[in-house]
Amino acid sequence: MDLNADLGEGFGRWELTDDTALLRIVTSANVACGFHAGDPATLRRVCELAAAAGVRIGAQVSYRDLAGFGRREMDVPPTELAAEVAYQIGALRVFAEAAGSHVAYVKPHGALYHRAGRDPAQAAAVAEGARLAGIGLVLTQRGGELDRAAAAAGLRVAGEAFADRGYLSDGRLVPRGAPGALLAPAAAVLQALDLAAHGEVTAVDGTRTPVAAESICVHGDGPDAVAVAAAIRAALDERGIDVEAFS
Amino acid sequence: MDLNADLGEGFGRWELTDDTALLRIVTSANVACGFHAGDPATLRRVCELAAAAGVRIGAQVSYRDLAGFGRREMDVPPTELAAEVAYQIGALRVFAEAAGSHVAYVKPHGALYHRAGRDPAQAAAVAEGARLAGIGLVLTQRGGELDRAAAAAGLRVAGEAFADRGYLSDGRLVPRGAPGALLAPAAAVLQALDLAAHGEVTAVDGTRTPVAAESICVHGDGPDAVAVAAAIRAALDERGIDVEAFS
Amino acid sequence: MDLNADLGEGFGRWELTDDTALLRIVTSANVACGFHAGDPATLRRVCELAAAAGVRIGAQVSYRDLAGFGRREMDVPPTELAAEVAYQIGALRVFAEAAGSHVAYVKPHGALYHRAGRDPAQAAAVAEGARLAGIGLVLTQRGGELDRAAAAAGLRVAGEAFADRGYLSDGRLVPRGAPGALLAPAAAVLQALDLAAHGEVTAVDGTRTPVAAESICVHGDGPDAVAVAAAIRAALDERGIDVEAFS
Amino acid sequence: MDLNADLGEGFGRWELTDDTALLRIVTSANVACGFHAGDPATLRRVCELAAAAGVRIGAQVSYRDLAGFGRREMDVPPTELAAEVAYQIGALRVFAEAAGSHVAYVKPHGALYHRAGRDPAQAAAVAEGARLAGIGLVLTQRGGELDRAAAAAGLRVAGEAFADRGYLSDGRLVPRGAPGALLAPAAAVLQALDLAAHGEVTAVDGTRTPVAAESICVHGDGPDAVAVAAAIRAALDERGIDVEAFS
Repeated sequence: MDLNADLGEGFGRWELTDDTALLRIVTSANVACGFHAGDPATLRRVCELAAAAGVRIGAQVSYRDLAGFGRREMDVPPTELAAEVAYQIGALRVFAEAAGSHVAYVKPHGALYHRAGRDPAQAAAVAEGARLAGIGLVLTQRGGELDRAAAAAGLRVAGEAFADRGYLSDGRLVPRGAPGALLAPAAAVLQALDLAAHGEVTAVDGTRTPVAAESICVHGDGPDAVAVAAAIRAALDERGIDVEAFS
Repeated sequence: MDLNADLGEGFGRWELTDDTALLRIVTSANVACGFHAGDPATLRRVCELAAAAGVRIGAQVSYRDLAGFGRREMDVPPTELAAEVAYQIGALRVFAEAAGSHVAYVKPHGALYHRAGRDPAQAAAVAEGARLAGIGLVLTQRGGELDRAAAAAGLRVAGEAFADRGYLSDGRLVPRGAPGALLAPAAAVLQALDLAAHGEVTAVDGTRTPVAAESICVHGDGPDAVAVAAAIRAALDERGIDVEAFS
Repeated sequence: MDLNADLGEGFGRWELTDDTALLRIVTSANVACGFHAGDPATLRRVCELAAAAGVRIGAQVSYRDLAGFGRREMDVPPTELAAEVAYQIGALRVFAEAAGSHVAYVKPHGALYHRAGRDPAQAAAVAEGARLAGIGLVLTQRGGELDRAAAAAGLRVAGEAFADRGYLSDGRLVPRGAPGALLAPAAAVLQALDLAAHGEVTAVDGTRTPVAAESICVHGDGPDAVAVAAAIRAALDERGIDVEAFS
Repeated sequence: MDLNADLGEGFGRWELTDDTALLRIVTSANVACGFHAGDPATLRRVCELAAAAGVRIGAQVSYRDLAGFGRREMDVPPTELAAEVAYQIGALRVFAEAAGSHVAYVKPHGALYHRAGRDPAQAAAVAEGARLAGIGLVLTQRGGELDRAAAAAGLRVAGEAFADRGYLSDGRLVPRGAPGALLAPAAAVLQALDLAAHGEVTAVDGTRTPVAAESICVHGDGPDAVAVAAAIRAALDERGIDVEAFS
């Protein structure tokens, strides 16, 4: 099982993610590429740290929206969006390669993640951007539009699940704001173990639900996030579950 | 002799350079990379056009300054500047390679061109950014700090001269604003011929002055710029001077 | 009848609208405030020109989206959007007042215009932003959500109609892309006369349709836009229709 | 004696200054206006908090440089710079006035503070921007170019001193990086008392040096900054020194 987290989400003077701590926990780093966060010097530093730690690098691509941290959905025409995605990947690739690594996959950030999961046109644009930039792998939830669009574009997809988000019995996430949407730390650890050992979670209605995932997403922002992520990693290690980048 | 011009200097809704016309004239295109001009869709389009026209692609890197079009000098610390340069090159490289071409060289834009020509620290940062991004060639004036810094970093330098700028007898440009700084179209054509045929110009004081140049820069913005550039190209062709990308 | 147009839609090096020409035609200038276009020096210059020409100044507020020219709808949370609108108005107000004029009204630009016309939450945010900035008048189409939200916030609304857009028999615009959406120049002149003299247009299905408008919007970008706008102004003047700012 | 600090220096998702804590300490708040930090919603919130706390609001104007946090000097032409300064003040003024307060003064931020202190052209541009925006007071060090330019433009100047910076015997600051440039917390408290009670400091060479200051600047970023600022405030209060906004 792979663990992924968002890294490099500062910008200039501002810091957000504890990249050094997260690189001791995860096996895949979704590195911000400058459109919602991530100045060039941060991209370089995070790529060097990730390469040194043997952590795989992915491009965390976003809408162009520093003021909104990429959390505001935008009606970007697909042609523009594909180019914006490719632009970000290319920028990151320089630093990954200069550090002796490479950009292994693409994962959309924030509002683009959600929009591409349900909007076929934006999903196809993300896949086209990845293809333009020579990236063959997309990290996203199974069953959404981006899963379909990536496959249609000839890209491989790695499915991801969330340790700290509740699931419905049909395998979709409980919407944010609804009861059970967010799991407490202890429950998140248990759900991560469940996902890794059984490929299942206990949904909010108590039913056991299969969730196909090659990677579990943990979060790095928020006061206790790194501690929770570390607890998940420790629990997986203790059970003898191999934590390694999906291939 | 190579001819180079700045291309792709629009941004979103705004257009500036007549890229299609310029691609019929020049052999090297300095493509804006997004920091002073150049949205991702424009980068893609210009790279496709340049590749189709057989025109070599260079990265026209700049300070991050859309509002000032990269014409305002900035005291960017060298570490940040090197990363900013590499970021821009990487972004452009994706589109150049997707179009079947590659980024052959780096040329700083505007205020960065001038600053890197006289500031060893920023010159070294530009060279470091090029090296990080795997680019081995810098296009700039001979004799300045960027020329030295690029050589010190193990990069090749192609010297450039200007068709429409007056020269002092020591081979430097007449400062903007001083008498003789800008040449009229007819004089620009003659100076381009002089540069290509003899490697010399007639300086403002009338002396013949050697100017080492593998490339002549022509300008694409301004009402008559394309016509002047076309006249220079036609004059070179008529005299049987090979116009081709420097190697 | 008032005539309004968008002005000041350049940014730094890039120009778009022929502000000087438009100020001889319109009585209300929707001045870009920096979020989709309009650097501070342009705001200042356009306000000075408008004040000297006796043309009323309005704040053309937008999503923060220079790369998309404010044409990409964004899911900006209402609290953020209200603050973004007020920020833009405040910035413009300085230049309007320094020129001896004032900001008389607010008109959203592009995607925000369309979104606020149908989304009650964003409409209320625009009205709240205007109220925060002390502006009492909104220019928009009658019958949409912004019309309602502005009235609910205690703001006055001036209704606007479009000279060059076709109407449906229910008074709404023919959607862009559908047959009859855009009128040729001669038809636009006739429709402007119709609006000013009768408060009616001939809809695409041939029926006469009332359109309540205190202002007619003319466009300033595009190759023939200024000529069409001038023709509309001339036609209104010839018929003895008073062209003056709505009060 | 007045105490001032920089507030509102977050941007969107990123936070930096502990505005609530600082508003219990200072009597003048230099609020970031969006060019180096400060999204519109933050401007609004900080103005509301400052007005509620009875803390005076000033416009902390900057170069347009989010990526560099306004710490990179820029050669902005004076005409552009004056307009950029006025734009920022106008934006802030809306929120100050909506909160029942007003913008009482202007203080440049970071690189603009330093540049305007020694460059007559940029100093005059800052003063012109303040004048355009109807602000009559500038907060800066005595004896620099901005002091002179503000006076020449008919603006009042409030002199400021720094609690935590060492002084030379001629009243200038010890340059950053030189020995004695930064004072430890205890020494900063003593220097603040010295400034408030005697209008003097003990310079690095041990001589007593007069420093004319109506306001003492304390810093709000950095791990211990708020604690040091609070200690300075407490020490002034204990000695019975009135801490109140300069008038």
